[in-house]
Amino acid sequence: MASTNETPPAHVVIIGGGFAGVAVARGLANKNVRVTIVDKHNFHTFLPLLYQVATAGLEPADVAYPIRTIFGHATNIRFRHAQVREVDHARSVVILEGGAEMSFDHLVVATGATAAFFGIPGASRYAMPLYSLADARRLRNRLLLSLEAADVAAEHANVKLTFVVVGGGPTGVETAGALSELVRIAIRRDGLRIRPEDVRVLLVDLAPRLLTAFPENASRYALRELSSMGVEINFGRSVVEVEEGHIRFDDGERLATAAVIWAAGVTASGTLAHDLQVSPGPGGRARVTADLRLVDSTNVWAVGDAAAVPLNDTQFCPQLAPVAIQSGRHCAAQILRVLDGQPTQNFHYRNKGIMATIGRQAAVAKLPRGGVIKGTLGWLAWLGLHLFYLVGFRNRLRVMINWTWRYFDWPSGPRLIVADAETAD
Amino acid sequence: MASTNETPPAHVVIIGGGFAGVAVARGLANKNVRVTIVDKHNFHTFLPLLYQVATAGLEPADVAYPIRTIFGHATNIRFRHAQVREVDHARSVVILEGGAEMSFDHLVVATGATAAFFGIPGASRYAMPLYSLADARRLRNRLLLSLEAADVAAEHANVKLTFVVVGGGPTGVETAGALSELVRIAIRRDGLRIRPEDVRVLLVDLAPRLLTAFPENASRYALRELSSMGVEINFGRSVVEVEEGHIRFDDGERLATAAVIWAAGVTASGTLAHDLQVSPGPGGRARVTADLRLVDSTNVWAVGDAAAVPLNDTQFCPQLAPVAIQSGRHCAAQILRVLDGQPTQNFHYRNKGIMATIGRQAAVAKLPRGGVIKGTLGWLAWLGLHLFYLVGFRNRLRVMINWTWRYFDWPSGPRLIVADAETAD
Repeated sequence: MASTNETPPAHVVIIGGGFAGVAVARGLANKNVRVTIVDKHNFHTFLPLLYQVATAGLEPADVAYPIRTIFGHATNIRFRHAQVREVDHARSVVILEGGAEMSFDHLVVATGATAAFFGIPGASRYAMPLYSLADARRLRNRLLLSLEAADVAAEHANVKLTFVVVGGGPTGVETAGALSELVRIAIRRDGLRIRPEDVRVLLVDLAPRLLTAFPENASRYALRELSSMGVEINFGRSVVEVEEGHIRFDDGERLATAAVIWAAGVTASGTLAHDLQVSPGPGGRARVTADLRLVDSTNVWAVGDAAAVPLNDTQFCPQLAPVAIQSGRHCAAQILRVLDGQPTQNFHYRNKGIMATIGRQAAVAKLPRGGVIKGTLGWLAWLGLHLFYLVGFRNRLRVMINWTWRYFDWPSGPRLIVADAETAD
Repeated sequence: MASTNETPPAHVVIIGGGFAGVAVARGLANKNVRVTIVDKHNFHTFLPLLYQVATAGLEPADVAYPIRTIFGHATNIRFRHAQVREVDHARSVVILEGGAEMSFDHLVVATGATAAFFGIPGASRYAMPLYSLADARRLRNRLLLSLEAADVAAEHANVKLTFVVVGGGPTGVETAGALSELVRIAIRRDGLRIRPEDVRVLLVDLAPRLLTAFPENASRYALRELSSMGVEINFGRSVVEVEEGHIRFDDGERLATAAVIWAAGVTASGTLAHDLQVSPGPGGRARVTADLRLVDSTNVWAVGDAAAVPLNDTQFCPQLAPVAIQSGRHCAAQILRVLDGQPTQNFHYRNKGIMATIGRQAAVAKLPRGGVIKGTLGWLAWLGLHLFYLVGFRNRLRVMINWTWRYFDWPSGPRLIVADAETAD
């Protein structure tokens, strides 16, 4: 072999190991680039199933997978367990907490989003979002501890327990349905001394219907199913304050709550502005051009929930897993084109439909052309799709076992309260 | 049916939902007594497999099971999720944290044991014991975080990583073996940039051999197996101080450590004296008569690790799961005899042997008559026995799947770092 004057391969840094970040890395695996994925967690989280961890249907390990393990076969991909402190765009350098620096040729912002509290007083402090594995564990502990405390209090007096879910999108609907099932199972199987009718699961939304991204017949179906599971639903109602143990609505009602679950929406603005020195654009997301580069940048890209991915001339893509995966894949291809001296291509979202599940055997799916699948068929489709996208064969197997269990209502399940901060004994 | 002047059934309070407490409750299930199990955790933990949770071979939910679910079928058994503050023996009342009181006709102390630090400076603060699910999670996070940090540091310099296991009993041997496997898998499969020879797993013990409860040929076998897995073993060496990131030995050596794992022994004294107003006796355990009642008490019993269960006139039983289970069963039978007006019987321990595993395919078992089983056969016996005693069919299934995975070394596994105290995003 002739000794040539080769330049070392370009370095691509990806911030975030969610759907989008992993899709970018997959697109760059075993190509002539060096890739570093930076994430403060050493695992990828399958967010669509977090609500099942929160409601004790699945274990944390069922929906998470070590990032290193995903790319064990790709020698050009490294993982770096770190928190990004800042990006120095002028020098093309990522600065990590602790001060270490990583220079990049291309940078991909795939930092996702977090719960949006819309400035509602007390919401960020007392309401419980569901956007990370830690969120899910915390919420589960809260739910189970509330039930244990109610069981004790029920010895002496009648106890009422109210869980409020704020938001009637897929996360809110799925969580309310699963929570209602958890309560029913816990009372019947675990012999808790609370009457089922004394536990209230209340879903509130400002909108006049559930699942506004779906057609109206899907909303009606979800409403009917949730109601039959004992979930109360209030439309056109907004939250004005969340306190410890209470919630206050715009109509003046103040309600004692065991937990307020926050499923009202997401924003990307905090992370972007603070850590990445990117000023938030539409919906708190990073402004990108049609090829997914940050406006005014040639080598910084944004994908997934963190980016305002264009859908057409006037609209942006919704913050959904398929958008994250497709934009990640597109970004990887474009980076390779740029490195190869070719012009970039514009991103086009291929709508594959959306779905939400309401409980065992009830789900609703909206097809790309607007059709709706409901009921058991929708549920089976939901189940298959989620198993398919779950990373790792073992996770799929474990989730399948857990679901089978829950489906047949066998009297076990991971209803463990493992405290966040526990003393040594 | 004639209306009779029946007295309400006697109330038995069991403090602790471990092997011993669960065995007592099982013995009282569906009998004419009311039973309340009090535990600060809502789950039963299968302690013999904690080291596998710590070394990322199993998930917390694989070795834990909700106490309520164990007794879902027994209507006379209640669970109370609470911490005991104090026992008022004169009034026969248990006082819980928060002030609630529970009166009892019989009380069973099944509070188990915790790590014994023998007053060694810094040990209780900086060494990591392995006696609860929280301990196991904390240790796992520490191990995985150390490897991640070493991977980063290895970019710039040669990194040495030392894990010290203090204690050469079954827990120490099992943890050292599994830790050594974890390191090897993490380096090979996850592409960590540390050289295997730079990670040191050091087991120290004051004794001249491993597994002193076993015959000498078992000790030699364990030593050979651990050594072949790369574990260094130092005998006749004691720890004089544990500091943050360091350990100091009696020979003056001070070693930088990534983690010090404390498997040096257990004591029951703290819980007994503080919470239960029982003065600790032999080995920190509660003094009991031959029928397992506290000395000087007619209605307070002690079982399992918390009790100095007599083996014969001069010796006490070891603190092992079989002793806990057998003493719990015996205690339940005696309570029923007392309530029935019959005299109590003395407890006799039936030795069923002991076992320890050293890694995949290597284990050692000591049979009741002194024989030893080693190697694959021992490992299969160990495996079968542990699956058999694990509570809940689903747990057994999940553990079997996890072990099969690990056995074939498939590149996945729950190597997740889920922090104890994590911020909301």
